[in-house]
Amino acid sequence: MKHASFENGVVEMSHGAGGRDMADLIQRLFVAAFGNDLLTGEEDQAILSFPAGRMAVSTDGFVVSPLFFPGGDIGSLAVNGTVNDVAMGGADPVALTCSFIIEEGLPLADLSRIVASMAGAARAAGVRIVTGDTKVVERGKGDGVFITTTGFGQVREGVSLSARNAQPGDKVLVSGTLGDHGVAVMGSREGFDFQTDIVSDCAALNGLAAAVLDAAPSTRLMRDPTRGGLAAVLNEIAEASGVGISIAEEALPIRPAVAGACEILGLDPLYVANEGKLVAIVPAAEAEAALSAMRAHPLGIDAAIVGEVGEDPDHFVEMETAFGGRRMVDWIAGEQLPRIC
Amino acid sequence: MKHASFENGVVEMSHGAGGRDMADLIQRLFVAAFGNDLLTGEEDQAILSFPAGRMAVSTDGFVVSPLFFPGGDIGSLAVNGTVNDVAMGGADPVALTCSFIIEEGLPLADLSRIVASMAGAARAAGVRIVTGDTKVVERGKGDGVFITTTGFGQVREGVSLSARNAQPGDKVLVSGTLGDHGVAVMGSREGFDFQTDIVSDCAALNGLAAAVLDAAPSTRLMRDPTRGGLAAVLNEIAEASGVGISIAEEALPIRPAVAGACEILGLDPLYVANEGKLVAIVPAAEAEAALSAMRAHPLGIDAAIVGEVGEDPDHFVEMETAFGGRRMVDWIAGEQLPRIC
Ligand SMILES: Nc1ncnc2c1ncn2[C@@H]1O[C@H](COP(=O)(O)OP(=O)(O)OP(=O)(O)O)[C@@H](O)[C@H]1O
Ligand SMILES: Nc1ncnc2c1ncn2[C@@H]1O[C@H](COP(=O)(O)OP(=O)(O)OP(=O)(O)O)[C@@H](O)[C@H]1O
Ligand SMILES: [Mg+2]
Ligand SMILES: [Mg+2]
Ligand SMILES: [Mg+2]
Ligand SMILES: [Mg+2]
Ligand SMILES: [Mg+2]
Ligand SMILES: [Mg+2]
Repeated sequence: MKHASFENGVVEMSHGAGGRDMADLIQRLFVAAFGNDLLTGEEDQAILSFPAGRMAVSTDGFVVSPLFFPGGDIGSLAVNGTVNDVAMGGADPVALTCSFIIEEGLPLADLSRIVASMAGAARAAGVRIVTGDTKVVERGKGDGVFITTTGFGQVREGVSLSARNAQPGDKVLVSGTLGDHGVAVMGSREGFDFQTDIVSDCAALNGLAAAVLDAAPSTRLMRDPTRGGLAAVLNEIAEASGVGISIAEEALPIRPAVAGACEILGLDPLYVANEGKLVAIVPAAEAEAALSAMRAHPLGIDAAIVGEVGEDPDHFVEMETAFGGRRMVDWIAGEQLPRIC
Repeated sequence: MKHASFENGVVEMSHGAGGRDMADLIQRLFVAAFGNDLLTGEEDQAILSFPAGRMAVSTDGFVVSPLFFPGGDIGSLAVNGTVNDVAMGGADPVALTCSFIIEEGLPLADLSRIVASMAGAARAAGVRIVTGDTKVVERGKGDGVFITTTGFGQVREGVSLSARNAQPGDKVLVSGTLGDHGVAVMGSREGFDFQTDIVSDCAALNGLAAAVLDAAPSTRLMRDPTRGGLAAVLNEIAEASGVGISIAEEALPIRPAVAGACEILGLDPLYVANEGKLVAIVPAAEAEAALSAMRAHPLGIDAAIVGEVGEDPDHFVEMETAFGGRRMVDWIAGEQLPRIC
């Protein structure tokens, strides 16, 4: 016998209305998949014991289109993206909350797949999803599903990372190839049928970040280069730290397939989003140690030292091109990619 | 001279793209309004010191339509709604995160008004907005703006509230009139032009909740009766605690204007959302103390004891009607109200 609230196989307005159908959806779909003793679906909040100390907290909304793409989906993205922003603070992510804004008519099969993917990603990252919320909006007032996750974790003793910490002489490291996520998502959109095997790099970086901090305890800061890509992150750092940054084009790890797709799409991989890479600014003395630690981790095998921090009253980011010239790497170049995360 | 990113007076896709326009919007609108030393807009996460103990965390997405309604707007609602879910756990809310999913074309004036309202509500509730996120979706893929807030706070020493705690003999208290929020929002929708002065009760309940706990330290649990109204909350409690609940129609505080509007709209105030009311289940011995504490608080002047907990293997919620009969108060009755919060 089919249950009333699942009869039509799609999300309906009643699934967000606070009644039986919503309670059913929460229990049978979300609580069942995320299952842990803090998430019962019975309380207005989750209660966790937290040790004294510093807590890192971060939130991101996810609106990626399409919902499913090579290498991931909005669910794994929503877990990993927030885990990563917490980890970039030198914290060990502990728990996540999730808020779903669902468009009426979303197939329950799609929602189940997304929720299962979130549960898997959370398990892989070692975090629990402890509380959530479910709203439904009318057809045409949303786009499938939007998910906001908020994560928190404990900051490691003695670690204090900040975009303001970069100093002249520091090295700039990236943990792997650039642009995979953005190109994978673009390639999965209707109307783009360039042939590609590129998959999103979507992954949880907490393990990699911990390895970097163990190996290079003086690391100044870490960032995940998501929207705006490496270019945006480096410009933010240059501005916040009041320094200049110079990178070498030849040192940038970029897959040939990604470089090729970027050419077809008219994109510059420096500006394309990543969802499983980190940028670390490390004092020169610890840069090799950080690099080795990255390369020893499965998510960092293509890691590279790509540049260094210098003095620059203009806080410019510049690139030494493959041909020996220099060019500015400004915040925006060419078209932006909408709905990439 | 107008700034490029604000030139057209509306949110554009570039405001969510990770470049200069987004950084501008974040700095000039969000960081400026929420201004506090934890929110610089420069880091991937906020870092707070947190004392050892239990942390309560809660999240809600807000999709209310229209964005502005008598007594509030989506901004104040997003702050108060999450503050309240944290406070219902016996915790003192400390900080919030916010995630904005904005539809392309939203007037910046509307966004500013919403953000100012959030800032005011946060100040009134004594919480800080410490980190956020901003995404933009294409016209027709959202509806103005959706906001998800996540809140956390420290649970009071010795307090342990849960929907499972209700026991036969306990009293059921409500802190004030029922249905104001839902009716105020419905009344502000196009097509509903019934004359009404009803305003939403949207308010932060952390002060009131603390007063209840001070006066009645054995309080079993507190809930804010939002979507699904008092009926949904009582049914959830009955089910989680394995008890029956009986309420008296005559004891329910309902404004005549709300009762009248509900009749016109074909709604039952028991099922209509509130955003500034709490339900408390309190042992009989402390019920009068809890009631007095509520009535002494500006947000609890219409508080009432409306029923009590009993034994019932079916976990039913029943109401003694004004005419001396009894009727079931089931989860759902009549039409649901979409997009009420
Ligand atoms: N998508 C979800 N994933 C995990 N848990 C969820 C999800 N949606 C809701 N829940 C859980 O279900 C329970 C009820 O959530 P609900 O949103 O009804 O509570 P509320 O926030 O108090 O009400 P409202 O959202 O109307 O203010 C909570 O324990 C919540 O953590
Ligand atoms: N609506 C907002 N309100 C308050 N602060 C915001 C808001 N949007 C962004 N911020 C702040 O701006 C900074 C940059 O946010 P951004 O979302 O670009 O970082 P990110 O999450 O690392 O990137 P992405 O969202 O692409 O993964 C952060 O410090 C964040 O807290
Ligand atoms: Mg609640
Ligand atoms: Mg992020
Ligand atoms: Mg909720
Ligand atoms: Mg980030
Ligand atoms: Mg709530
Ligand atoms: Mg973000």
